[in-house]
Amino acid sequence: MLVHFELICRDRESHARRGRFRTTHGVVETPVFMPVGTQATVKSLTPQEVEDLGARILLGNTYHLYLRPGAERIARLGGLHQFMGWKGAILTDSGGFQVFSLAKIRTIEEEGVSFQSHIDGSRHVITPEKSVEIQEALGSDIAMCFDECTPYPVTYAYAKASMERTVRWARRCLEAHGREDQALFGIVQGSTFLDLRRACLEQLAALDLPGYAIGSLSVGEPKEEMLAVLENVAPLLPADKPRYLMGVGTPEDLVEGVRCGVDMFDCVMPTRNARNGMLFTSWGSIQIKNARYADDPRPIEDGCGCYTCRHFSRAYLRHLFMARELLAYRLNTLHNLHYYLGLMEQIRHSLEAGAFAEWRRRFYANRDGGGTSD
Amino acid sequence: MLVHFELICRDRESHARRGRFRTTHGVVETPVFMPVGTQATVKSLTPQEVEDLGARILLGNTYHLYLRPGAERIARLGGLHQFMGWKGAILTDSGGFQVFSLAKIRTIEEEGVSFQSHIDGSRHVITPEKSVEIQEALGSDIAMCFDECTPYPVTYAYAKASMERTVRWARRCLEAHGREDQALFGIVQGSTFLDLRRACLEQLAALDLPGYAIGSLSVGEPKEEMLAVLENVAPLLPADKPRYLMGVGTPEDLVEGVRCGVDMFDCVMPTRNARNGMLFTSWGSIQIKNARYADDPRPIEDGCGCYTCRHFSRAYLRHLFMARELLAYRLNTLHNLHYYLGLMEQIRHSLEAGAFAEWRRRFYANRDGGGTSD
Ligand SMILES: [Zn+2]
Ligand SMILES: [Zn+2]
Repeated sequence: MLVHFELICRDRESHARRGRFRTTHGVVETPVFMPVGTQATVKSLTPQEVEDLGARILLGNTYHLYLRPGAERIARLGGLHQFMGWKGAILTDSGGFQVFSLAKIRTIEEEGVSFQSHIDGSRHVITPEKSVEIQEALGSDIAMCFDECTPYPVTYAYAKASMERTVRWARRCLEAHGREDQALFGIVQGSTFLDLRRACLEQLAALDLPGYAIGSLSVGEPKEEMLAVLENVAPLLPADKPRYLMGVGTPEDLVEGVRCGVDMFDCVMPTRNARNGMLFTSWGSIQIKNARYADDPRPIEDGCGCYTCRHFSRAYLRHLFMARELLAYRLNTLHNLHYYLGLMEQIRHSLEAGAFAEWRRRFYANRDGGGTSD
Repeated sequence: MLVHFELICRDRESHARRGRFRTTHGVVETPVFMPVGTQATVKSLTPQEVEDLGARILLGNTYHLYLRPGAERIARLGGLHQFMGWKGAILTDSGGFQVFSLAKIRTIEEEGVSFQSHIDGSRHVITPEKSVEIQEALGSDIAMCFDECTPYPVTYAYAKASMERTVRWARRCLEAHGREDQALFGIVQGSTFLDLRRACLEQLAALDLPGYAIGSLSVGEPKEEMLAVLENVAPLLPADKPRYLMGVGTPEDLVEGVRCGVDMFDCVMPTRNARNGMLFTSWGSIQIKNARYADDPRPIEDGCGCYTCRHFSRAYLRHLFMARELLAYRLNTLHNLHYYLGLMEQIRHSLEAGAFAEWRRRFYANRDGGGTSD
């Protein structure tokens, strides 16, 4: 199975690491942030723009693509890369998260999950084998094992039963998986119970999968609980394989994830918040609809090299947003993704320079008012 | 007043002409199509994309910009060009059309028009002097005289009174206008009554304005009525100045406008229809939501050089449109504007080659099934 992970260097003071992995669609430098392309598009952007922003790997959503336009259709049209015109790597999630968060669940059984589409109410069943079949049809570079994304909070008993089923489903996924140019990653579950997380990790590690993810974080638990799982579980994931923290999170979450040894991240936050007018900067975030920006000729952030900041004022961006102009969503998305991808690039450079701790100190100092102020 | 119009050549068999005019923001080759940038943006596109499509002049809407974000604000931020990041020329309409079509009119009097904003119901008065003041604040290269866009149908008496007021308003606009780097165009009214159109034209021509437009066409009248006005009025507009057909129209309308001697066009059709999934091709138009395109790997039109057609299939465009993805509106808009701007480029080349009649014959033959079929 592909995904050749290479560890370039480790931080001396934390679990942070600088690495790189190879896929059929190019090399990915880690730690990496993967923009989310839910419905075969990173919302509002062309693939060329996403590439120009520096992204080399995207996340595609199995659940959405299965329902519309359909995985078989995408396969007939040459696979997901060709369909959406993206030359870089693609990771598809298992469909589990969306089945549990968007669809109307009918039943969760050992065999799989029955649900109704959130689009048209049609009935479907996704089993571990079906999830693998869909992801093989999509032709992603990295597929994820079908899992139950446990909500928060759950009882210990529920978390244990769910985690054990997720492990059994992972074995079935591995059994069903056959595509040689696609890597299959396992997902560690167990909610906020550290012993369950460790037990899950041990059983999945035994499957010798080419990468491992931590699932069901940032699902409503307090920040300290998330950090506790991160700090206790991430460093235990096999060190010679990519470690992926699913669906997380804020810039701070990414920095802490890296500190705990995570290599891969994805989150809708930069793109979704952009469409809601929330823009990231090194000193925090701003709401562009705020009246104080109506006459502000400055860019979102001085010195930001993104297309938006090089060409447009806060006043113009506020106008576009208030007028609900389509260009608002694009320009905001360009800036926010530039921020997230730039953040990861800074982190990689700091790791290469053996200066991650110092970089992290400055990152927080900027946010505490030490940096450029708004 | 700026806008130096130069006639390059005339067609021998029609009133069509190939020209060029100069503005403070660049040279515009005519016949030209001006994409509409209502709220200081061509919907969904960046100024760079609009420029890359070959557009050198845009239309901005005085009514919209006056209400939001406000002309004084745009002036403080450096004017409309700087505000929206557009380096080419800009023509602003007078606000008349939108006041009459969008706002809730309170009164039309000799002094001007009282209305309520369609955005927040606030009350405003636009007079000829106010329209000029707003357009001078916006800093467009070409401003239009404030006029009443007469609906269809109206009585002869109404059309006559309205036209005569529009002429008086034009005189007041000229009186009020002072910006040296901005040209002020007149607008010929008179509904579908040819004698009224001619009377209006004569009185406006006496003002020696640097350009003339035909207004209130394509407002619901039968195609033959529109053509009758075009054929009888356009050739009478001063030959040494740009002639502008406002708010028109279909590809066929543009071809017939050129034949009658029109130099400038604007219309929301390519951009608005794009957002509704209607795509223009040389053999007619297609509705991308049609189920027949769900598995169609071909581009919208074979051989089209636009970004959309070079990279994406009809199947992908249909998927984006059905999923209401923001990228759908962008990709469709890019193609439709490429089509409209390409059409005008073909027309200009045919005029230079003395082959407009032959080009026009082929244009219609393609649409009658002689061209590539869908
Ligand atoms: Zn920026
Ligand atoms: Zn095209």
